[in-house]
Amino acid sequence: MLINCDMGEGFGLWELGQDQIIMPFIDMANIACGMHASDPSVMQRTVRCAKEHGVRIGAHPGYADLQGFGRRFIEMPLAELQALFIYQLGALSAICESENTQLSYVKPHGALYNAMMKSDDIYIALLQALAKYNANLPLMIMAVPDYRRYQKMADEYNVNLLFEAFVDRSYQSDGRLTPRNQPGACHNDLETICEQAIRLIKKQNVISLDGKEVSIKADTLCIHGDGKLAVAVAEALKERLAPVIAEALKTRLSA
Amino acid sequence: MLINCDMGEGFGLWELGQDQIIMPFIDMANIACGMHASDPSVMQRTVRCAKEHGVRIGAHPGYADLQGFGRRFIEMPLAELQALFIYQLGALSAICESENTQLSYVKPHGALYNAMMKSDDIYIALLQALAKYNANLPLMIMAVPDYRRYQKMADEYNVNLLFEAFVDRSYQSDGRLTPRNQPGACHNDLETICEQAIRLIKKQNVISLDGKEVSIKADTLCIHGDGKLAVAVAEALKERLAPVIAEALKTRLSA
Amino acid sequence: MLINCDMGEGFGLWELGQDQIIMPFIDMANIACGMHASDPSVMQRTVRCAKEHGVRIGAHPGYADLQGFGRRFIEMPLAELQALFIYQLGALSAICESENTQLSYVKPHGALYNAMMKSDDIYIALLQALAKYNANLPLMIMAVPDYRRYQKMADEYNVNLLFEAFVDRSYQSDGRLTPRNQPGACHNDLETICEQAIRLIKKQNVISLDGKEVSIKADTLCIHGDGKLAVAVAEALKERLAPVIAEALKTRLSA
Amino acid sequence: MLINCDMGEGFGLWELGQDQIIMPFIDMANIACGMHASDPSVMQRTVRCAKEHGVRIGAHPGYADLQGFGRRFIEMPLAELQALFIYQLGALSAICESENTQLSYVKPHGALYNAMMKSDDIYIALLQALAKYNANLPLMIMAVPDYRRYQKMADEYNVNLLFEAFVDRSYQSDGRLTPRNQPGACHNDLETICEQAIRLIKKQNVISLDGKEVSIKADTLCIHGDGKLAVAVAEALKERLAPVIAEALKTRLSA
Repeated sequence: MLINCDMGEGFGLWELGQDQIIMPFIDMANIACGMHASDPSVMQRTVRCAKEHGVRIGAHPGYADLQGFGRRFIEMPLAELQALFIYQLGALSAICESENTQLSYVKPHGALYNAMMKSDDIYIALLQALAKYNANLPLMIMAVPDYRRYQKMADEYNVNLLFEAFVDRSYQSDGRLTPRNQPGACHNDLETICEQAIRLIKKQNVISLDGKEVSIKADTLCIHGDGKLAVAVAEALKERLAPVIAEALKTRLSA
Repeated sequence: MLINCDMGEGFGLWELGQDQIIMPFIDMANIACGMHASDPSVMQRTVRCAKEHGVRIGAHPGYADLQGFGRRFIEMPLAELQALFIYQLGALSAICESENTQLSYVKPHGALYNAMMKSDDIYIALLQALAKYNANLPLMIMAVPDYRRYQKMADEYNVNLLFEAFVDRSYQSDGRLTPRNQPGACHNDLETICEQAIRLIKKQNVISLDGKEVSIKADTLCIHGDGKLAVAVAEALKERLAPVIAEALKTRLSA
Repeated sequence: MLINCDMGEGFGLWELGQDQIIMPFIDMANIACGMHASDPSVMQRTVRCAKEHGVRIGAHPGYADLQGFGRRFIEMPLAELQALFIYQLGALSAICESENTQLSYVKPHGALYNAMMKSDDIYIALLQALAKYNANLPLMIMAVPDYRRYQKMADEYNVNLLFEAFVDRSYQSDGRLTPRNQPGACHNDLETICEQAIRLIKKQNVISLDGKEVSIKADTLCIHGDGKLAVAVAEALKERLAPVIAEALKTRLSA
Repeated sequence: MLINCDMGEGFGLWELGQDQIIMPFIDMANIACGMHASDPSVMQRTVRCAKEHGVRIGAHPGYADLQGFGRRFIEMPLAELQALFIYQLGALSAICESENTQLSYVKPHGALYNAMMKSDDIYIALLQALAKYNANLPLMIMAVPDYRRYQKMADEYNVNLLFEAFVDRSYQSDGRLTPRNQPGACHNDLETICEQAIRLIKKQNVISLDGKEVSIKADTLCIHGDGKLAVAVAEALKERLAPVIAEALKTRLSA
């Protein structure tokens, strides 16, 4: 069970997050590709930092909308979206190659991530594009109750999936995230966040906002690099999760 | 001796040049990479068109300045320029890969091309970046009298060079192009253009504006895809150069 | 009854339309404001051309999306949309002022125009913004069957409306335009276009695609500046509409 | 003697400076206009904040280069630069008008500011543009030893000037700023900064890096809104300068 975090979200002079501080505590860095955040120099700096800490590098492509930080849905033909997607993967890949490292996976950003989870057409368009560009790159998507449906579509394009769960967001009893505009959507204390993480690893479930055990099959846990708790969460998870993961692995191997 | 031409210089709805018409007549397509012109969809369309006609694909990276079409010099640190350069190579490379083809060379665009020819620092920065990203990609630069100096710097980075000459621009007796703001800078009739091309192939020289024979060592001839004569020039060169090139090759082989 | 046309839709080196040729034949130039098309220099050139021909200048603001030419809907908070709208009005207004002329009206562009006609929230947001910035600028919207509803909302903000009809698009029997993806959506011959224009002026109606007379209350007729027929339409309307308009006015005055 | 500070330098999600905290302590807010920083929403927010604190609003236009924050010189024709300049003044002016306030002056940003001080052509181009747009807006430039030369050129276009001095930068004995790449270029302690400010007001001079009294005729003092000392400087100057200014005024009136 690996920790992933969005990284490289500055742009030009503007900084965002605390990449240098968070990087040592994570396993996978989702690096923005210059369309919704980042620029070639930020990407290069972030790739170097990830490499230095042995963190896997994922492309984090988004809609071409710096002002909206890729959080605004943009209606566009699927063929154009595919080209935009491949463009970003290639740009980051080249920066990796020039630093003697490489892309390991792809996680769409913001409105594109949401669009992919809501619209099968968009999800399939991304799978197709990935298959055409480099089918060896797994696609990271949200761990959802109907994950088998997503798995089936990915199988058709021979694309591997990585399912991610969120440690600082609450879930509803249907296994979906509580929308951000509802009370209790975000966990704001370290203990709740760590508990949810440990439970996701040990028991592969979460306790929903209304108190039910909800099964969540996740390959990776997403943490956020900005916000007051970011560093504390990153540090605590790094420290506390290692033994939990070790034991979980042992249990599974002995089963 | 191959014909190269800038291609894929539209952006969004805006078109420029006559890529579909010119492509059958050229050997090498310098494709813009989305910073000074082009966008992922234009790039994809242009890569497909080049592939269809068996035309080699070159990356044509420029300064990030759509409004200025990459023709305005932008002062920037060399490290940032290198990252910007690699970003563009990777973006186009990925689009090539997703279309089952690949990049064959790199030719900087506009103000970046001029800056590279004027400033050794910038030229070396591009060589370094290319060496770090993919030293197998040759760099296309202008065929100049002091080409050996450029060759020597490129050798240090193990980067191959392609020297290009211009068929529709007049040369001065020092082997440099006549600046555009001077009379006679551009050849405006088909015959002069073809004569200059044939002479460049057969005799490896041009007749300068003041009537002197000037030696020019070129690997490729650049033609322009816009302008009134563009199609006629492309067509005429394709037709007339083939026998000239064949004979020139024969002569050299028998020598 | 005035003829309006989108103008100033180039960007940097890229041109679109035939502003210089069309301008003498129109009454109102909808000038793009640099977000979906145009740039400060294109705007200045277009304002000068409009002024020279005594053509009224309207701001033609759109979503900030050059690659999509403002034709892609972008989800954004209304307050941000209002600021974006005012920004564009001010930018064009300043260029008018520096050329000793002024803005006369506002017509939203592309996806923003469609969004305004589909969503009352967006329509009202634009009315509010206009009222805050300069309530003397009329807003041009589509002449629709339920135009009174739009009028009522505009009245609340003391914003005047200009209703526009289309001469090269067919209407359905409900008074709405035939969607572009349906057969017969566009009129492709000069005579049909002129007939529809004359009918709109004389009888304030159109013949729908299925042969019915449909009442359309329009203050201005929109023509397109690109396309094969653009110049012919502009010229023909200028010539043929003058007597029709004169007679229509006389009839109304004597009534 | 008024305190001016660059404000509204965020962009989209990205923040810069501490506008809300600094605003109460300054007299003039130089607000970025969306080309090198800021966007319509940031501009609106900043205009509201300035208005709330009774701070005069100045346009702070720059080169169109978000990634470079307007700090990279871009070679462009003067006519294009003028249009770009007016565009930005208008955009901010409209946002002011929609908030029932108005522009009071103009201060070019970053590389444009430097270019204006270095190149008479560029300086004159901005004067001309300002004269064409609104000659009532004073232009803020650097207080330099040869200020009379600048004054003379401004007089030709009937543009008023505001000369600004810097409180946190050291001066050389020729009255120019010590370049940033030289030791001692920036004052890093509060006391030196306040002393320089008080001296500028009381005695209209500074002590140069090599210990000489250098006359500086300034109308306004520039402080910086970012950096560790920013708030402390803003606060200290507000408090300490009031009596100094009052006395200086009294002295001059009685003289």
